[in-house]
Amino acid sequence: MLPHNCHKMTRPSLLNFFCAGNRTIELLCGRASARRPHSSHTMRSVASRPASGFSPSKVAVVTKTTRCEFEQQRYRFAGLSEVDLKQLLAMKGSSYSGLLERHTIHTRNVEHIVKSLEKEGIEVRVVRRGEYDEEVVRWADAIISAGGDGTMLLVASKVFSKDKPILGVNTDPERSEGHLCLPVRYTHAFPEALERLQRGDFRWQWRQRIRLHLEGTGINPTPVDLHEQQLSLEQHHMAHRITTLERRRESGAQDDSFSEPNLLPVRSLNEIFIGESLSSRASYYEISVDDGPWEKQKSSGLSICTGTGSKAWSYNINKLVEQSVEDLLKIGKSQTGLDIPLDPGFVEKVTEEYNQSLVFSPEDKRLFFSIREPIVNRVFSSIRPRGFAKKVCVRSRCWDACMVVDGGTSFEFNDGAIATISMSDDDQLRTVVL
Amino acid sequence: MLPHNCHKMTRPSLLNFFCAGNRTIELLCGRASARRPHSSHTMRSVASRPASGFSPSKVAVVTKTTRCEFEQQRYRFAGLSEVDLKQLLAMKGSSYSGLLERHTIHTRNVEHIVKSLEKEGIEVRVVRRGEYDEEVVRWADAIISAGGDGTMLLVASKVFSKDKPILGVNTDPERSEGHLCLPVRYTHAFPEALERLQRGDFRWQWRQRIRLHLEGTGINPTPVDLHEQQLSLEQHHMAHRITTLERRRESGAQDDSFSEPNLLPVRSLNEIFIGESLSSRASYYEISVDDGPWEKQKSSGLSICTGTGSKAWSYNINKLVEQSVEDLLKIGKSQTGLDIPLDPGFVEKVTEEYNQSLVFSPEDKRLFFSIREPIVNRVFSSIRPRGFAKKVCVRSRCWDACMVVDGGTSFEFNDGAIATISMSDDDQLRTVVL
Repeated sequence: MLPHNCHKMTRPSLLNFFCAGNRTIELLCGRASARRPHSSHTMRSVASRPASGFSPSKVAVVTKTTRCEFEQQRYRFAGLSEVDLKQLLAMKGSSYSGLLERHTIHTRNVEHIVKSLEKEGIEVRVVRRGEYDEEVVRWADAIISAGGDGTMLLVASKVFSKDKPILGVNTDPERSEGHLCLPVRYTHAFPEALERLQRGDFRWQWRQRIRLHLEGTGINPTPVDLHEQQLSLEQHHMAHRITTLERRRESGAQDDSFSEPNLLPVRSLNEIFIGESLSSRASYYEISVDDGPWEKQKSSGLSICTGTGSKAWSYNINKLVEQSVEDLLKIGKSQTGLDIPLDPGFVEKVTEEYNQSLVFSPEDKRLFFSIREPIVNRVFSSIRPRGFAKKVCVRSRCWDACMVVDGGTSFEFNDGAIATISMSDDDQLRTVVL
Repeated sequence: MLPHNCHKMTRPSLLNFFCAGNRTIELLCGRASARRPHSSHTMRSVASRPASGFSPSKVAVVTKTTRCEFEQQRYRFAGLSEVDLKQLLAMKGSSYSGLLERHTIHTRNVEHIVKSLEKEGIEVRVVRRGEYDEEVVRWADAIISAGGDGTMLLVASKVFSKDKPILGVNTDPERSEGHLCLPVRYTHAFPEALERLQRGDFRWQWRQRIRLHLEGTGINPTPVDLHEQQLSLEQHHMAHRITTLERRRESGAQDDSFSEPNLLPVRSLNEIFIGESLSSRASYYEISVDDGPWEKQKSSGLSICTGTGSKAWSYNINKLVEQSVEDLLKIGKSQTGLDIPLDPGFVEKVTEEYNQSLVFSPEDKRLFFSIREPIVNRVFSSIRPRGFAKKVCVRSRCWDACMVVDGGTSFEFNDGAIATISMSDDDQLRTVVL
């Protein structure tokens, strides 16, 4: 419940200001990491030893926006004082000093990275995630993501060359998981990481990524950045959609250009989600797997992931909880009369083995698709609800749908739009395994 | 793929007009029915025989909007001709004559209902779903939903008295399931249904419903009707949110009034869904089950359903597909060395028994909650991911979230808002079992 002082605190401006407050940064950045299960870095397993060391001369360091920076932006936006902010945070069970502390830790870790690079005579550009663009990518020999997995995904999304290495440094290891980042010890010992890079004492890992072709109608080729930290992402989202719809009314060029397959300017490291934008609405679409027949589907959307993403959202869509496994084993036991054990230890073991079977290598050249909460009725056919594929084609029958790349970049995907989802070695992301 | 003539067809106005076209009516109305599994009407099982017959003198017939009507509205809105509409529908693999046929069938069935009622000297008001309001409910002795389950849910949502009977007639039995409606034979033999009502040859079934209390901050008490058929529901949604946010800035009254628990003017027959509005975003919240401790959760939202709703969305969230059951039994077999059968028949049997265990009676006084795609990591505790409860309290930590009632009515539910979800016998919905 709310603290007693909350009634005193219900000044509208403060409330508006705070409405979307707590956990925001995590919401914006944390999905990828948060959605990953406990599990060690598969990066270590499969990778290739470089011929020689790697000594970049120009490195871009892309930094996340801390929750503290975000709240400060917002209270300035709402014209509030720092005192207001402190009270509001207290009201929500957060503390301003706590945010400041996390912010300081992040900043210190970024400084550590930058100093270590400069010490080696490397030219460094520190770039806020909002300022990160193609020009920065072109300039740099290598790009370091300084934040969590969310920042790493954003950094990767703008890199199209398989020769441009990406490193992730988790700048708040106590708070975020950072499965896509280097082992946390290098956060505080970055010179050691650099030295190993220069010595060649590391491995390259080329992570497979997904490419998207769009054709047909009902398409809006301009992506919406869900990372963007505005007061309401939906406002931004809508504003965006309205303007592009108006553009269409004025000229059909955009749609004409999209009547033929178009390769979208983004690559997915984790997964593509296709479905109605509103989470409470069912999605209608047709799907063809590996050039098989088109089948009508109705479900809570569709997920198509890489090996990297098989530990992220796709894992949470498909994993089983021990509760279900136990109930299922009970049924199996009663129906067979066999002495199937039901002790917690066994249930846990079976659950773990099942869930681990959902994870595959980041270098695997296959996609894994999951029809989410499939709706089976006489109208809709029962294609296998999930599986590996080389290529998945989806035709939207949706009303107000999107195609979301790594939970961060969203494309309109309405009735008449057709997406072809595949992998190409040209899209591999060059990452480092220490 | 699109027909070849689609390039000729890409006139922008036509395209805008059609962007959100196909399946729209189903999207707006059909979720409840579509999300139901194959299964006979549990209505038949438990119900109470009335003391005497039921002879209403005033009956309101609430009619759905057919896909045909919807498309016509839209092409008028876009200033298009009927010829354009026909071409566009053809381009999408639908036919205008097909839509007209469905529309005619619906209209004929509505007329059949109305004539049958008038023949019995019953005063009838035919009301389009858009015109259906509290005044109609007050006026009528009984309300007939003429459409599918979506129309039935809308009709029920505005009925608060347990003495006002609701009947559902499926006006397009070949196309929609209508689990909440009378058996389809009465669609064409409505006089027989009336006669049984008057004779008392039927049963009342009081379906339990969910009530919602909201308190705290980050609340917008004004619901958004997702049924409403506008060119973009999201535009409507946002327009709505913006205005109420502005209202808040001007006066804090609304928020103050919501610092104490408020009973929302809606009852849920199927389920409440709580989560981020955007389907691709993870939801943060705290949950307390039956006054237990508050636990932090991160998931793809939270579903809380009634017995009626246990066959709807909640079923699709929790059901297992045979593919998973087979994989799981394989693991169990290999780990125990027991001779667990893996033939399709056995897998199907186990799957069926498991899935049927998710369904419970519409008269059951318990809620069933499901934490959807729970995200387990060191930060988030592992409350049991689903189960029965008398009361569930949820505190939003969300950024841009909603609480959606029966997939049709949405309330803002952002950081600081607290929802108490429970059942009361006062909220029972009086339905008829023939």
